[in-house]
Amino acid sequence: MTLSREAFEARLRAIGAERYHDRHPFHQRLHSGGCGEDELRAWVLNRYCYQAAIPRKDAALIARCADPALRRAWRRRLEDHDGPTNDDGWSTNDATGGASAVGGLARWLRLAEAVGLDQRYVASEVGALPAVRFAVEAYVRFVAERSLLEAVASSLTELFAPKIHRERIAGLLAHYAFATDETLAYFSHRLTEAPRDVAFGLDYVLTCADTAERQEAAVNALIFKTEVLWAQLDAIQAAYAPGGAIPPGAWRPGQGLIGEATR
Amino acid sequence: MTLSREAFEARLRAIGAERYHDRHPFHQRLHSGGCGEDELRAWVLNRYCYQAAIPRKDAALIARCADPALRRAWRRRLEDHDGPTNDDGWSTNDATGGASAVGGLARWLRLAEAVGLDQRYVASEVGALPAVRFAVEAYVRFVAERSLLEAVASSLTELFAPKIHRERIAGLLAHYAFATDETLAYFSHRLTEAPRDVAFGLDYVLTCADTAERQEAAVNALIFKTEVLWAQLDAIQAAYAPGGAIPPGAWRPGQGLIGEATR
Repeated sequence: MTLSREAFEARLRAIGAERYHDRHPFHQRLHSGGCGEDELRAWVLNRYCYQAAIPRKDAALIARCADPALRRAWRRRLEDHDGPTNDDGWSTNDATGGASAVGGLARWLRLAEAVGLDQRYVASEVGALPAVRFAVEAYVRFVAERSLLEAVASSLTELFAPKIHRERIAGLLAHYAFATDETLAYFSHRLTEAPRDVAFGLDYVLTCADTAERQEAAVNALIFKTEVLWAQLDAIQAAYAPGGAIPPGAWRPGQGLIGEATR
Repeated sequence: MTLSREAFEARLRAIGAERYHDRHPFHQRLHSGGCGEDELRAWVLNRYCYQAAIPRKDAALIARCADPALRRAWRRRLEDHDGPTNDDGWSTNDATGGASAVGGLARWLRLAEAVGLDQRYVASEVGALPAVRFAVEAYVRFVAERSLLEAVASSLTELFAPKIHRERIAGLLAHYAFATDETLAYFSHRLTEAPRDVAFGLDYVLTCADTAERQEAAVNALIFKTEVLWAQLDAIQAAYAPGGAIPPGAWRPGQGLIGEATR
């Protein structure tokens, strides 16, 4: 049975209450000051993989749009993460591949630096957990290959993001010395970017999912995305929380620090 | 510097000693009788995802071969897992999608039944951990998209498989009531299949990786594959070992048992 627009929106929002990663124990420890320095670093450097994949998945979505208006609207996400276009050309002597200039990725790398990690090491992703890479690439694939409706629906975790970003900013400022308005700029920017983006995406999904089958596909796309987010935290926790075990080859405390050789 | 054939083979074999999943603590507990009934079930139903993906990745490899001899050699893997071709047609009333007939997948489903799981529930993969699905699909993609050399090299974990299968057969028979020659038939078959397959794959890789660059690519492909295997056990352990936390939506003890409604 096709749900009304209101009932369908409520169904989508209920997925957040059930499955969004603000419910994950790792975030609860992170936001309440329970993470040690190396757990923080592990989170920042692994989460960078996800951040770095976002513009690729957004471009994959744009690449499939026949509608210039949808392409224009979605392009703001590329600007948010990669920064504005400019006339500076492409800098070949930037060891972070351009990620350290401006935009969300640049802000994430400043966060990495604030917790003591070398930006180039983080941007190289060499120390990232395989499970995090697998989850992130599954997301890029999903957006590139599923229907446009499912691709847009998978972005709707942004419905739930402002709450977690507010909790994170407050929690990190309260509990960690590295946290300042400047080092947490990534999250404060997202407080304004995400609601603007999600208003567009939600309207698109509510309008286009006009059959029970399409509503079900959108619901499953959003569930898939919550799994992508949750799996990253599961992997970070299993590797780096007290009692955890780091898989062969993944970042170990002491590697990739500012001023050290970055192996 | 290009390694000699012997040195290159030693380099490949050293990856097993460092990174193969026989070193994972979950396997050590599994083989020594330390896993409870529900952990066993979790392992069997999650590992089914991997088993079910193997023929897809092998077909993806065959799909890219211009050489009929390589296609013929690789096709034996499809026969091993999916069973021989026959004239019975495609059975639409088989709830496991044909997986329960003959071959490696059928043997895996008999193992599932032996630990109390409904074969249809296992074959549906609905209870599998997202992290396991992400890892398995990353493997299928890798084989479909990387060079043929890398695709073949990623199969060389079979170099290390007979040892783990022998340990597993002995360990399961010694410690678990469900284990019999019949329920463990999947593993005993692999004892003869894997060495035959890997002899071909190893010769191919040793012959085709004739530059330092290609040797490095093969090494990295084999490392990637060990990550795919390791990440699955990390996820199973984090969810189902004592003290673990099951992600939203994944199988919970009591679900999918023989004779029960499957939710």
